[in-house]
Amino acid sequence: PHIPYSPRRYADDVMLRRSQEFYALMNERRSVRSISPEPVPREVIDNVIRTAGTSPSGAHTEPWTFVVVEDAETKHKIREIVEEEEEINYKQRMGDKWVKDLQRLRTNWVKEYLDTAPYLILVFKQTFGMHASGRKKTHYYNEISVSIACGILLAALQNVGLVTVTSTPLNCGPQLRLLLRRPANEKLLMLLPVGFPAKGATVPKLTRKSLDDITVFI
Amino acid sequence: PHIPYSPRRYADDVMLRRSQEFYALMNERRSVRSISPEPVPREVIDNVIRTAGTSPSGAHTEPWTFVVVEDAETKHKIREIVEEEEEINYKQRMGDKWVKDLQRLRTNWVKEYLDTAPYLILVFKQTFGMHASGRKKTHYYNEISVSIACGILLAALQNVGLVTVTSTPLNCGPQLRLLLRRPANEKLLMLLPVGFPAKGATVPKLTRKSLDDITVFI
Ligand SMILES: Cc1cc2nc3c(=O)[nH]c(=O)nc-3n(C[C@H](O)[C@H](O)[C@H](O)COP(=O)(O)O)c2cc1C
Ligand SMILES: Cc1cc2nc3c(=O)[nH]c(=O)nc-3n(C[C@H](O)[C@H](O)[C@H](O)COP(=O)(O)O)c2cc1C
Repeated sequence: PHIPYSPRRYADDVMLRRSQEFYALMNERRSVRSISPEPVPREVIDNVIRTAGTSPSGAHTEPWTFVVVEDAETKHKIREIVEEEEEINYKQRMGDKWVKDLQRLRTNWVKEYLDTAPYLILVFKQTFGMHASGRKKTHYYNEISVSIACGILLAALQNVGLVTVTSTPLNCGPQLRLLLRRPANEKLLMLLPVGFPAKGATVPKLTRKSLDDITVFI
Repeated sequence: PHIPYSPRRYADDVMLRRSQEFYALMNERRSVRSISPEPVPREVIDNVIRTAGTSPSGAHTEPWTFVVVEDAETKHKIREIVEEEEEINYKQRMGDKWVKDLQRLRTNWVKEYLDTAPYLILVFKQTFGMHASGRKKTHYYNEISVSIACGILLAALQNVGLVTVTSTPLNCGPQLRLLLRRPANEKLLMLLPVGFPAKGATVPKLTRKSLDDITVFI
């Protein structure tokens, strides 16, 4: 069945102001690779994930699982897996060109934030699902859908003053899936350490493309 | 070079309130397939796209192009291309199962919103880029990055009271790319009609998974 939908509507000047304020807020977002161990209320994390769960998804399949790791021992095991693979990535798998393209970000395979961040959110895409009957359920566009949900999650974090770094730990998916006991239909898409920035945190000096660089009007 | 980063920080109770309010706002978002022709200030659309452009991207490649179509004739040509392909998708390419999975959404190949929406935003991923020297620039994780940017774009639309439907018009990419004169390195990822909901707009009655259904805490 279909139901009426009439969301709140703002006057033109209010829309304009809201669009400016939200842009200013989101434009302050940066990927932060040094995260403070200070605690963050768990309820805030719950709401951030609830927000990600409002994302659209292909045929409303909601093909996401958010694994939130607070346990210090598990975080450390994750760090060991990621650093071991990332060292091989940087030294062998990524190739000189990729490593060079990352140079100005000064990233490397040492990821202290995996121990220090109060939460690690590991985002899994469900490549297919199961009907109650046990029949396989197709998850159309699952990677795109989960990535959209991550975009909304990043907006929700920024809105409460928390930071993360969007990371895609190459070749770590299978080991992390086993460590976290996720089923075989789930594949790791992103790993997001979440917390406040560490004291004295720095970020690469970057500029963003202007509206003209990214838009074509017809 | 690296620069200090110390974003605004909120007290715990403010964080909690902000996280609740943002969740409530985003949870009101729905995909709307019947869009009013009422005009929308162009500056609001500019700010929404600027906001999407703050998204993270693999190695800061910003691999997105947003084509905003306001011209009625171009919108109509887009409609013709999409409806022709979608009719074949529904009748032949998608298969009975996919069509059945979409039944409760009551979607089909007729897309009046492609004429009526004041703006169509066609989001292209740049599968690679060009250095000033003409050398090819690798765009790591370009599809994931652009999908994240779309998530932030959807949040920005919702924040100003505009609606869209996230759509991925199957098999229409090449024709739409040519119509819009985009270069060969760009591939259509999403088509978003943007405006106010039409009077009397309805949406499928859907529920969303609960926090417990989508989260694992460790
Ligand atoms: C990647 C992706 C592709 C989608 N493709 C289409 C589409 O081609 N046509 C359409 O009508 N809806 C499409 N949708 C919208 C979904 O059907 C919709 O998000 C879902 O039914 C949940 O409804 P809601 O967005 O109102 O929460 C798509 C959504 C996503 C995330
Ligand atoms: C899909 C994707 C994958 C990324 N992977 C990594 C990663 O593995 N490690 C890392 O340090 N940063 C990673 N990043 C973060 C980017 O380097 C960062 O977004 C970019 O440099 C722009 O900086 P900003 O987020 O501060 O605007 C990734 C970003 C995206 C969108």
